[in-house]
Amino acid sequence: MNANLETEILELARNAREASRATANLSFTQKQDWCFAAIDKLEASRTAILKANREDIDDAQKHGVAAPLLKRLELSDARWRDMIHGLRDIAAFPDPIGQVTGIRVRPNGLRVGQMRIPLGVIGIIYESRPNVTVDAAALCLKAGNAAILRGGSEAIRANRALAEALRTAAREVGIPEAAITLIPMTDRAAIDVLLKADSYIDLIIPRGGPELIRKVSQDSRIPVIKHDAGVCHLFLDASADLAMARKLVHNSKIRQMAYCNGLETLLVHRDAARRLLPQVLEDLREESVEIRGCTTTCEIFVHAKPATEADWAAEYLDRILAVRVVDSLDTAIAHIERYGSNHTDNIVTENYASAQTWIRRVNSSTVGVNCATGFSDGFQLGLGAEIGVSTSKLHAYGPMGLEGLTTLKFVLYGEGQIRE
Amino acid sequence: MNANLETEILELARNAREASRATANLSFTQKQDWCFAAIDKLEASRTAILKANREDIDDAQKHGVAAPLLKRLELSDARWRDMIHGLRDIAAFPDPIGQVTGIRVRPNGLRVGQMRIPLGVIGIIYESRPNVTVDAAALCLKAGNAAILRGGSEAIRANRALAEALRTAAREVGIPEAAITLIPMTDRAAIDVLLKADSYIDLIIPRGGPELIRKVSQDSRIPVIKHDAGVCHLFLDASADLAMARKLVHNSKIRQMAYCNGLETLLVHRDAARRLLPQVLEDLREESVEIRGCTTTCEIFVHAKPATEADWAAEYLDRILAVRVVDSLDTAIAHIERYGSNHTDNIVTENYASAQTWIRRVNSSTVGVNCATGFSDGFQLGLGAEIGVSTSKLHAYGPMGLEGLTTLKFVLYGEGQIRE
Repeated sequence: MNANLETEILELARNAREASRATANLSFTQKQDWCFAAIDKLEASRTAILKANREDIDDAQKHGVAAPLLKRLELSDARWRDMIHGLRDIAAFPDPIGQVTGIRVRPNGLRVGQMRIPLGVIGIIYESRPNVTVDAAALCLKAGNAAILRGGSEAIRANRALAEALRTAAREVGIPEAAITLIPMTDRAAIDVLLKADSYIDLIIPRGGPELIRKVSQDSRIPVIKHDAGVCHLFLDASADLAMARKLVHNSKIRQMAYCNGLETLLVHRDAARRLLPQVLEDLREESVEIRGCTTTCEIFVHAKPATEADWAAEYLDRILAVRVVDSLDTAIAHIERYGSNHTDNIVTENYASAQTWIRRVNSSTVGVNCATGFSDGFQLGLGAEIGVSTSKLHAYGPMGLEGLTTLKFVLYGEGQIRE
Repeated sequence: MNANLETEILELARNAREASRATANLSFTQKQDWCFAAIDKLEASRTAILKANREDIDDAQKHGVAAPLLKRLELSDARWRDMIHGLRDIAAFPDPIGQVTGIRVRPNGLRVGQMRIPLGVIGIIYESRPNVTVDAAALCLKAGNAAILRGGSEAIRANRALAEALRTAAREVGIPEAAITLIPMTDRAAIDVLLKADSYIDLIIPRGGPELIRKVSQDSRIPVIKHDAGVCHLFLDASADLAMARKLVHNSKIRQMAYCNGLETLLVHRDAARRLLPQVLEDLREESVEIRGCTTTCEIFVHAKPATEADWAAEYLDRILAVRVVDSLDTAIAHIERYGSNHTDNIVTENYASAQTWIRRVNSSTVGVNCATGFSDGFQLGLGAEIGVSTSKLHAYGPMGLEGLTTLKFVLYGEGQIRE
């Protein structure tokens, strides 16, 4: 470990912690002003930011980086627009901080409630996509936190330019610049220093591939909220309506193949398999989806290939679907407990008891009846922009919006109460 | 590391994980039946349990264990009664699991809410007090979780006897015994195995001294909710009423010296110091409390000794109080930010703006106006029995009741909605 690197990063983290005392007390208007100032600064520096982004991409190309990664690296027009829209949405969103809920009067007259407060300093460790710099900083700040941002070294020029615009906007509206701290060192050892800075950072959110997430969760001394994988299921119950089944399977698989809330395994009740599968799977075949089925599926649908054990746990993010016929709702639930990833698992049914049992017993982070899997998303659920999707149960479970970046303290309003 | 030990403990943890699938679906009545059966079994085995406890104590005495620890080890009549009452309270408490809150209708008609579900498997690592075995197991089970209990080796005989009664009760009412798993190995390496069993355990709660808590937080690969220290403050504002100040300071310091919610540092506004301190501190001197004050305090109250820097951060749990005169409410808040422990910090004031500023800006886990510090306690806040007091902000902050042992999943009720 380079001692200088460590000292410099800890100094940055300490400054962010100091800034978080100020961000905790920002008013709605101050945060809104920052969002609008940030939009102005970003638009004013657009040419310079895109030039930096172009240099990152050229560099990555020279180093033989693969095409999908290059695409993620690019600040396209669409991404730029989304980034600016995101800031506008966050500006308008109600302030989560300071809300008091659940006030009750205790027998001694003491009024007890809970007030929403920021977590403090959030560390975001991410890869490639430079737009995360803006999205993450804005969400953290809106929730009253300081943000420490550590993007991928391949995006460092664009990240620096973006962060500079955000910090200039902060300075202009009287927010300490350290509230938005970009770690400028591309050395991977920088991550190790951050993960041990538990006196300055309250929460680490890794956003990136499985390797990054594994590394961060294993090495961090700071709590980590992670998003592992999206092995999402639909279960077609015995009573499922054919038209609804076709519509929901097609939409869940086809809409956005590369998103974590896409369908990966279809489960079908034995009593409905022959009625539903031929048309449901033919729809997918027309979309060039490869079907990997259990023995019964392969009997019913001749174009299916035999699935292996690995298929039940696969997050394809691609034109492949695993299909299994199960004996009962219980077997479907057991399959999900064994192979699922606590992401999104929905039932298609006309039966009241099946729907209730599913909602009660499947403990994935999003559980639905008669809807596509694509709804596990901050905007779709009404949370606003999301900082990630948590598949571990502590603190936040499922799509994580502004509230996930806050906590609740107890507030006591007394008139001289003492404990007897 | 002993490979056998590791294999055996992981097997126990795997069984607890398996049992947690059953405990997640227990009804209110089944959990209530278990509580009553546990009371019966404990009462029926009382003689044997107390004999085991006596052997633990004799053994500890032989090894020269100090008197306070011996006292914590003892299952006195009062502790036994509290243990049984605790089970009765938990039996009657509403079931937290399955409650759905916040249902809202999205523009597409999808109804979205959140349902409370168990965390899964909770590991409790504790010392000395054998009654924790019963309290912790009952709280975990009531919240639908399986419990893995790892008590101190000095209490192993009593813990075994207590756990046996709880498991027999489980068997009788049809709950898998592994839902209450006591780690019978007294080897300290057992803790290391547990802390790495992140595929089987969802949350670790250490209950014990600072050394245990430090070890657990540093070594755990599983999320830890910890209770660090209780450096609690009262701030007497310029407008504080003398009678109320005397009553609240006396009660906060004297009621239970050894509890984490006792008063450790008194802050006083400069404008009120001469009016309030003489009588407030004289009350404490009559209770043999040693006063360690800042320069101004020592001028005002001749019996005060000069405080050192270390006093501002001290959790005395004893007849000592640090006292500091501050220039303003802002200075009081800055003092708490620097030296406090995020436990309980209250203001005594007659002024509306001071009260509002305090509640808004002090981000300790419990923040109060005009009440004693002793109210940060599960029962006092209306949460029921508490599993601990969290002084870190993630997931649970402050006294942690049944809800802290649960999480929320999203539930979606649709009629065929797809994402456009």
